[in-house]
Order: sequence, then structure tokens, then C-alpha cells
Amino acid sequence: MKDTDDIPALMAEIGVRARAAASELATASPAAKRAALEAAADAVWRRRGEILDANARDLAAARDKELSPAMMDRLVLDEGRIEGITEGLRAVAAQDDPVGATIAEWDRPSGLHIRRVRTPLGVIGVIYESRPNVTADAGALCLKSGNAVILRGGSESFHSSGAIHACLVEGLTSAGLPEDAIQRVPVTDRAAVKAMLTMTDTIDVIVPRGGKSLVGLVQREARVPVFAHLEGIVHVYLDAGADPAKALKVVLDAKTRRTGICGAAECLLIHRDVADTIGQGVVRALIDAGVEVRGDAALQSIPGVVPAGDEDWGREYLDSIIAARVVDDLDAAIAHIRRYGSGHTDCIITEDDAAADRFFARLDSAILMRNASTQFADGGEFGMGAEIGIATGKMHARGPVGAEQLTSFKYLVTGDGAVRG
Amino acid sequence: MKDTDDIPALMAEIGVRARAAASELATASPAAKRAALEAAADAVWRRRGEILDANARDLAAARDKELSPAMMDRLVLDEGRIEGITEGLRAVAAQDDPVGATIAEWDRPSGLHIRRVRTPLGVIGVIYESRPNVTADAGALCLKSGNAVILRGGSESFHSSGAIHACLVEGLTSAGLPEDAIQRVPVTDRAAVKAMLTMTDTIDVIVPRGGKSLVGLVQREARVPVFAHLEGIVHVYLDAGADPAKALKVVLDAKTRRTGICGAAECLLIHRDVADTIGQGVVRALIDAGVEVRGDAALQSIPGVVPAGDEDWGREYLDSIIAARVVDDLDAAIAHIRRYGSGHTDCIITEDDAAADRFFARLDSAILMRNASTQFADGGEFGMGAEIGIATGKMHARGPVGAEQLTSFKYLVTGDGAVRG
Repeated sequence: MKDTDDIPALMAEIGVRARAAASELATASPAAKRAALEAAADAVWRRRGEILDANARDLAAARDKELSPAMMDRLVLDEGRIEGITEGLRAVAAQDDPVGATIAEWDRPSGLHIRRVRTPLGVIGVIYESRPNVTADAGALCLKSGNAVILRGGSESFHSSGAIHACLVEGLTSAGLPEDAIQRVPVTDRAAVKAMLTMTDTIDVIVPRGGKSLVGLVQREARVPVFAHLEGIVHVYLDAGADPAKALKVVLDAKTRRTGICGAAECLLIHRDVADTIGQGVVRALIDAGVEVRGDAALQSIPGVVPAGDEDWGREYLDSIIAARVVDDLDAAIAHIRRYGSGHTDCIITEDDAAADRFFARLDSAILMRNASTQFADGGEFGMGAEIGIATGKMHARGPVGAEQLTSFKYLVTGDGAVRG
Repeated sequence: MKDTDDIPALMAEIGVRARAAASELATASPAAKRAALEAAADAVWRRRGEILDANARDLAAARDKELSPAMMDRLVLDEGRIEGITEGLRAVAAQDDPVGATIAEWDRPSGLHIRRVRTPLGVIGVIYESRPNVTADAGALCLKSGNAVILRGGSESFHSSGAIHACLVEGLTSAGLPEDAIQRVPVTDRAAVKAMLTMTDTIDVIVPRGGKSLVGLVQREARVPVFAHLEGIVHVYLDAGADPAKALKVVLDAKTRRTGICGAAECLLIHRDVADTIGQGVVRALIDAGVEVRGDAALQSIPGVVPAGDEDWGREYLDSIIAARVVDDLDAAIAHIRRYGSGHTDCIITEDDAAADRFFARLDSAILMRNASTQFADGGEFGMGAEIGIATGKMHARGPVGAEQLTSFKYLVTGDGAVRG
């Protein structure tokens, strides 16, 4: 069907189709978009056998390629995960439609009434690795926000993503929406990624989802704006005013609930005044939970603590390891986070309002938390229904990127013959 | 004081200073920023003699260079214009401080309270041509929004801008704010502009203010995000449902109040059904007002209408000229604007709500108007106090860019020991 030898031409054609679909989608009714997503969810469940067969093909290839267990875990689907995909689609379907929503409105002495309303961005490019569910999540969020999307999944999940994509297209068609609204790049050649990064005429923003090497490549080479985070070097700071029980509970969850996600804690900072009390208790509990604690000199008297090296500060382990350090005070913690953090999510544990206010004011991470697990850094947990990713840049979108952040706005100004005169 | 032979080194130093100042400014109190702006306004008025002397030097040089009358008009200052500058500074000073303002907040079933608050973007680069007042407007808006700014004015207004800049620095110093918060590039070499376009580490966004060649250069070559509009190809569409009196009043104002601004109308589209009635009246009135009307065949029977050529559609005259065309219906007007417009400001004159709704929904200009002069496309008229420019892109800022659009946001999340568990 397509000439897959000429990747730039193939991608250019996909881009032109996406732009045309975006133009139609911008005025699609909320009901049609909702119906498409619900029909897609139905199709995913009805066609789960196909999806599992496709996933089996991907898994067989992955075993041949000796993928890491973490990669295999991301790739594998079962009925439970497929149900999760349908729930994600239905959750996005049920959300308020952002397009056309009034963000603000006001009157002017000139007699003008000014409304600021949401509009789609246009065409979103999503470049991801092995999680097949990103196909559904990203497709759904882009459709909800009135954007056309070009999905370029990793070669590992090629067949699984293809089967899920077919269900999304079934949903679009059944609702009378253009099937080019959600396109999937039908080849695994990496030249397709390179092409997307420079398609400034037909792609408005690129969202990379995956490891540091993929995101780094996209951030360095894209001529198109990018919503992304390179790393989640997440800090938790135990303040002098920390509550011991909350400290223990929050740090353990932040580190151990899931270690491979970007909101997992990677570094524990402990105020000197509570290092021997709350700090020691937390460190021991982490070790008891099987976490390797790499501590600075002040913590090495605690049995089981491994000495930290310089390379442990500012490091994203994505594993059952945490760096830990005693700091002189709140400002020293802030200075450490400014130097070593990645602007993703950072947390203070304290009952002291002034300390929390200072932490919130002096740091500029996308997400700052107080007395809450950093594993809540997630669009679903924020109430966005789903997220297409988490962004640490400051332009346009920041933090979890849901449907609203995939919109722009325009001004609608009405007068009754008003002139400036 | 500075080695002005090595422009890249000079600009790099300015960038580093701006970044340091931005870090301080991000937590500057609203009172300090307001005081700095009020002190700057006082200084501009007190030192108006110096400013006028500096302006006289620029004007003398401009006469030698035989600048166009339009350029000369933008450049010249008098006591009235200086008073306007002080009023602009005071208006921005009086605005609500956007930094730290809560944009949205909500509770989650998990017990989390989530707040989205405004933060500064960081460092803004402003590249402009001959209007010396941009120095004050841009400096004030960036300061208000907690951003450091690097101002690079045109060589024509070099001395005038320098004198105004000195007053801004006096304001900063008197309020205890870093004087590097508002820096001015102290050389006229164009290499400084080139350097700014690639200073991705120290400049977060560039705002070009000026003619098409300057803005085009910046848009093509910047590696830093840009808030800009290349052209204001502003359309006014006289619908079949137009009120004759409003049509006459609005079109005349939109075209003739000031012809050299980006919100001035450049093309008049007339519904076939009212071409011989309202349309003819409006065209005659334009001609009577001294406007050259370049009409399509359907309008050439009106005395004084000049035949339009293909090159007249999608043209920004910035002069006392307007293109005019009869269209079959609303959708033909929309199609014309989609093809030839620049996404800046477009207007419908109609009493028909359905027609206005369709015009608003199907077009995606930054500003869409109904029964109001397009000359209202201005941050001051929108109630933003002032604007640093008007953007037609869809990323981050759009339409008139005031202090709010120069901010990003962060999430502040509080729990009481909440974990995902």
C-alpha cells in the first residue's frame, strides 16, 4: 500500500494527511469524539484475541532479541492490561471536551466583550518505545483535544500497537471522523523518527515517551517544539519539622512502590537536626525493604548503608537504589536540588508551613510536593484522566500533559459597532 | 567597560548575567517590582531633558541617513510621548502581579490538594527597531512577570533607548532589584542579534518587534522559541446580515484610524447579496476618505475603484490602500481568509448570530472579531496594561502578549502523608 523504501516521502504524505484531518477535527463535535473513543474501547475489548496474538508475536521477537526483563514487562499484555486500556479510553471519552471551552472572559470600557477559548494545537507527533498502551492513551488524548496525531511506536511493540491502532481507527470510522486523525507510522525504520523531528510544516509538537537516549535525541535534534522530560531526578527532603510517621510512609512509597517510573524518588536529603532520629529510621526502613541506600559520610554509620560517590548526586537509577545525604538546613536542600535536580518532581516532608512555603517558592520544578508521595506525579492522579507524558520545559505545557495542555487558544471579540476613533 | 570587538563573548556575558538576575527576580516581592517601575516612571519624567537630547542625536543621524517619514515618526519623542512612556510604566506597575498567582486549584480523592501557580519564564530577549518606547514597555512587562530581559533596540534609536534604559536601571536600583534584570545590548552590531537567536542556555524566548524582514529573520534562524507575528493581513468581511451603519463605521476605523499598525484592515470581503447596497456604500466612503480601493471585477463599476491584481490578495499594505472582493457567501469568505490570511486578526460584520458563530468556529486566527474595529487588536485595549507584541503562533502565547503570557506555571501539591500504596 505504501512505498516503504522512501521514508521521507512516506512521512511527508502522513504529515499532509494529518494536517488535513486536523483541519476537520478542529470543528468535530464533542459527541462525535466521545463516540469514537467509546467505540474504540468496545473494539479493543471485542478484538482482544487479535491484540493478544499480535502481542505474542512481539514477545517472541523480544525473547529472540533478549530484551531486558523491564522492557519485557512494559511490552507484555494480558486481559487485565487490555481492560486497563479500555478503561483509559473510556475515562478520556468521559472528560469534558476542552475545545471551545472558555478559559476567561471579560468586558472592556470600549464596549468589547472578550473571550479566550481553547483551540486544538494541530498535529501532534508521539514517538515512544515499547509500551503498547501508549498507542491508545496518546491517540485518545490527541483526539479529545481536537488534534490529529502521528504515532511512531517502537519496533518491539510493532504488532501490538498495530492491533490497538486498528481499534482506534474502527472507532473513528464508526463516529464519522477522518481515519487520518490517528495515524500510525507503518514502518520500524528509524529514519521515520528523524523525518518527524524536522516536519515543521505538518507537525506542531512532538512528545517523546521513553528512555533518556530517545528523549535526548529528540530534544537535541527536533526543529519542532517538544514536550518532554529527559529524566526524573526526584528528591525527597526530610525537613527538621517532618512528622516521623508521614516521613516513613511517604519516603517508602516514593522509592519502592514502583522503581522504574519517572516519579520514583532517587535522592533523599535529610536535615541535620533529624538525621539521627527520623532520618535514621527512614534509612533503616528503606534498607529493610530491600533498597540499596548510597549515603554520604554522615550516614555511613547506619548498618547496610553503602558509601555514595560523587556520581550518585543527580542520578536517575530507576531501580531499587537511593542516594541519601545529610544537609545543614532547608536552604542547603534547596541548593542541592537546584544543582542536581531535573525540574520534574521534588518533595518536602514537613509540618512547618514556613519551610514548605520557602521550598515551594524557591524551587521551580514542574511539580513540588509536600507530605505526599512523588509517585503521584501522574496525569491520572492529577485528575486529567490520562497523560501523554510529563514535561519539564517551561513553554506551553508543564508537568503531566493531559488533553487541556494539548490545546492553544484564540480570542473572540464582540462589539456593537465599536471603533477606536 | 566591555570588549565590544568580541560580540559573541559580550552577548554570552550578558546572557549569564541575565540568568543570574532571573533567578533573583523569580522571588522578588510584588512591592519591589512595583516600586521599581514607579521609580523608573519618575526618572523618565525627571530626566526628560536628557532623553530629548539623546533623541535629538538619533534624529540628526536619521536625517543624515534619509530615513522614511514613517520611520522618523516612530523614532521622534516629545514631552507628550515621554509622558505616554511614564503612563505605560505606571499602568504596568499598577497591574496585579502574575507571579505566584493561582491559575487553578482542586482536590483529589487521594487527599491531595493541587494548585497550579504562575512562575516566570526566565530570560526574555527583545529585538526591536526604531520605537524607543519599546525599551520601557518591554522592560516593564518582563520585570512585572519576574523575567530578566535583554533589550536589543535598533541602531536608529540607540541613544534614545539608552537614555530610557538608564531610567529603568535607576528604578531597579532604587528598589533593591538586580540591575541586570533589564539589560540593554550596548552595541549596534547586527552580530548581537545573530548571537541572541542561538543563546538557548540563557534566553528562554525571543520577541521580535519590527518589520517583516526582521521578524522573518528571527523566525527562520532562532533556535530559541519566538513569540511573534510576521504580518497582519487583516480581513473584514461584510456579511449578508451586516448592519449598514456599523459596517460603515467599523470598516472606516479599521482601515483609516492608523494605517501603519498590524491591526489595520488590509482586505475587505463583501457578501454578494449586499455588494450593491452596503458594500458599495462602504467602498465609496473609503474612497472619499482618501483610501485607494483595489477591487475585483464585481466592484470595478464603482467610480474610483482601481482593479486588483492577484498580488493584492494576502498583501499587507500598511498604507492607505485596501483590497476588496465580492464573495458568494460566508464560507467563501472563510475560505479566502484561510488561504490568504496571516492568523492575526479577522473580523465579521453581521447581526446574524449563526453566521458569527460559524466565522468564529471555522477560522483560527489569534483574534476574531464581530462588529468591532480590528484596530482594537492591542494589549492595552484588551486590558493587559501593555503588550510586548502580538503572537500568531499557537505555542504558549497567542494574540497580544502581556505580562501573564510571559509566565509559565508549576504545580504545588500538598498531602497529609498521602501515598499511592
